[in-house]
Amino acid sequence: MSLNSPENILARLADTLEKRMANCEAETDSSYTAKLFAKGPNTFLKKIGEEAAELIMACKDQSKDDVIYEAADLWFHSLVALTYYDIRPEQVLNELARREGVSGITEKNNRKS
Amino acid sequence: MSLNSPENILARLADTLEKRMANCEAETDSSYTAKLFAKGPNTFLKKIGEEAAELIMACKDQSKDDVIYEAADLWFHSLVALTYYDIRPEQVLNELARREGVSGITEKNNRKS
Amino acid sequence: MSLNSPENILARLADTLEKRMANCEAETDSSYTAKLFAKGPNTFLKKIGEEAAELIMACKDQSKDDVIYEAADLWFHSLVALTYYDIRPEQVLNELARREGVSGITEKNNRKS
Amino acid sequence: MSLNSPENILARLADTLEKRMANCEAETDSSYTAKLFAKGPNTFLKKIGEEAAELIMACKDQSKDDVIYEAADLWFHSLVALTYYDIRPEQVLNELARREGVSGITEKNNRKS
Repeated sequence: MSLNSPENILARLADTLEKRMANCEAETDSSYTAKLFAKGPNTFLKKIGEEAAELIMACKDQSKDDVIYEAADLWFHSLVALTYYDIRPEQVLNELARREGVSGITEKNNRKS
Repeated sequence: MSLNSPENILARLADTLEKRMANCEAETDSSYTAKLFAKGPNTFLKKIGEEAAELIMACKDQSKDDVIYEAADLWFHSLVALTYYDIRPEQVLNELARREGVSGITEKNNRKS
Repeated sequence: MSLNSPENILARLADTLEKRMANCEAETDSSYTAKLFAKGPNTFLKKIGEEAAELIMACKDQSKDDVIYEAADLWFHSLVALTYYDIRPEQVLNELARREGVSGITEKNNRKS
Repeated sequence: MSLNSPENILARLADTLEKRMANCEAETDSSYTAKLFAKGPNTFLKKIGEEAAELIMACKDQSKDDVIYEAADLWFHSLVALTYYDIRPEQVLNELARREGVSGITEKNNRKS
């Protein structure tokens, strides 16, 4: 699998976000993402609420293009939040992999106890 | 990159979800995911709203473990929605890759027009 | 209780929203609300997702002023949605009154069956 | 306006919620609301995210009964949050009344500055 494969995009995007965050004060004019980091968590966290709502509506509208677009928006803003709290997407993917052998119902019961 | 790498988890998970959806009526007793598919979109779409709220709160609580856990929950339920509408996670990753060369501000302006 | 009492504000606001909706095309320059109606449901419904997220964050921030402000935003955008679907706030208040004699647990069980 | 008018329901409901909160530990067996207070903010705040999603979907489904039901759910869980942070619904209604003379666009510009 090449470095440019879609599978690598989350890791590559996280690298970019880390750089944007490090220079966010200097780049607020040109970069939407730098602006999000500069304004702080409430600004990008409210986007997670908004993008979740937009994904839900795209699904209800049964528009495949919109579902793809809004899911990308939601994942992107999740990545911004992960980066801000110093978490790599690989850690989220590992958590998903860990759950794979465990059924959702067992998972849910484990969590409760 | 091996088939078991974290990077492949989204594709592998989508494969599993497709099977769960195909057999959802038969598996509702044992599988949380089959139950979601059997109950239909409003059931898993409301989970997207709930998990977005939980991710926001985990971030505000600055608990790294919870952020990872809730991001996994949010991405998982997004994948359920993608599968239901016959969309592969690779399509969302491609959309994110497509945007990479484009700044967010240009992207936003493009969308509006 | 006078017509200007806070208790009447929801009904009075709904009256105003009905007028804004009727003239929404003509008033998009000056009225934020007319603009919402003119752009259609997805525009004000995504605001409900965003305002819910902002209310949650104001609560986590324990800022009373922000909680009041964001709850007002959330209720306002709910009222826009109600108006669009031709529902009066009194109908929502009646539903809340109806539930009063019923415990939430009974209510929940009733709903499921 | 009588004490039983729908307009008074928010104030009356807030009174009930205050009592439930005061006795929440003793009433968790019988009262859904007492349970919410006993479990703490993250439990009822995530309900705000979930109910916002359900209201959005009821609107997209164009089901008036569901819109009324879900708006009631959303307002109810907002009231639980207000009560927890020692805020009365009248304060939110006053904020809505205060904005009445101010156009939304002016309001938005005021907020930003």
